[in-house]
Amino acid sequence: MKKIAVVLSGCGVYDGAEIHEAVITLLALDRHGAEAVICAPDVEQMHVVDHLTGEVEPGARRNVLVESARIARGRIQDVARVRAADVDGLMLPGGFGAAKNLCDFAVRGADCHVEPGVARLLREVHAAHKPIAAVCIAPAVLAKVLGGEAPKLTIGDDAKTAAALSAMGARHETCPVDGVTVDREKKLISSPAYMLAGRISEAAAGIEKAVAELLAMA
Amino acid sequence: MKKIAVVLSGCGVYDGAEIHEAVITLLALDRHGAEAVICAPDVEQMHVVDHLTGEVEPGARRNVLVESARIARGRIQDVARVRAADVDGLMLPGGFGAAKNLCDFAVRGADCHVEPGVARLLREVHAAHKPIAAVCIAPAVLAKVLGGEAPKLTIGDDAKTAAALSAMGARHETCPVDGVTVDREKKLISSPAYMLAGRISEAAAGIEKAVAELLAMA
Repeated sequence: MKKIAVVLSGCGVYDGAEIHEAVITLLALDRHGAEAVICAPDVEQMHVVDHLTGEVEPGARRNVLVESARIARGRIQDVARVRAADVDGLMLPGGFGAAKNLCDFAVRGADCHVEPGVARLLREVHAAHKPIAAVCIAPAVLAKVLGGEAPKLTIGDDAKTAAALSAMGARHETCPVDGVTVDREKKLISSPAYMLAGRISEAAAGIEKAVAELLAMA
Repeated sequence: MKKIAVVLSGCGVYDGAEIHEAVITLLALDRHGAEAVICAPDVEQMHVVDHLTGEVEPGARRNVLVESARIARGRIQDVARVRAADVDGLMLPGGFGAAKNLCDFAVRGADCHVEPGVARLLREVHAAHKPIAAVCIAPAVLAKVLGGEAPKLTIGDDAKTAAALSAMGARHETCPVDGVTVDREKKLISSPAYMLAGRISEAAAGIEKAVAELLAMA
């Protein structure tokens, strides 16, 4: 059974992992007979957003690992404890959490810093020639960590975000919502998901293709 | 386009809506071309559970509607504002939230009370001869509200829970994880989902059948 690390960033599109993307990823992996090794960094969220109003809740604090555990039904571990040797590949769902908690791309753009445990695991998995998939805004994390290798990635078609990926060293490719961008040499897969999707089934179409490609390479 | 009310109870299996069940429901509805009218009661959660440790967080407070909005990506309304005339059917995902926030079955069993806005909408939709589906523990809510009509329902095969449903007036039917129990006369559909599922794909198999039945009746 292939094991795939799924790195979450909280629980909720505006301050954490995009829930639909995360669940669709877990379902696709299970339907392919793969095991998800769910993990997240044990750090505070950048902030907490009231998803009804869209406003930041002043003073509220939540932990990324603890909130991610909601999506994982408790079966989750600190990303710092996961080694490349434990898995056959890695997947990053999106949501603002990828750009606020896994790194600070949401506020610093191309000058962002990546959470050390996440950066270490990404580098390890990549160095072991194991595939990595990222959807929605999460390719920004890959661009920052692996930008020196000029990886081919997509975040859909948003010009400003694409320019920021290019500034980090990536080669951005425009991609439709139901497509995937594949860098075969570097074993990197990406898909726009909710960067472009207007409906959950559109996000699912691309994510399911990304998971299939990931497992084919793993 | 058929419209289906999806009543959420928070965001996380131990104190809210079961996230996988909710997302699989939304994806199945969208793939059938139906529109989800997502709603939840605007009430405090019974409590907040740390999903990493499984322990209640002392003093923590979260609102069911606000947390449910995470699953809905903000597109959600107070269940009190939804009318039967607005929808063609209704679906209740499970999770402890269904038994802690939509009603207090988790602590009072057959003597539970159902949140008034949820009870009102269920009665209205049922009185309008529109179908209702419930998965996991959520059939307990239906048993309490519609028990006087002796509805046929399932929560899987847990004897104690099944006995509690019977005590509320339901006729419990044992059902496998990938099956559905259908009361055609009363237009009620139920499936065990995570009452029995050991894997997300098992939960999905039953939920997808429940959604298909619901839409066929709607």
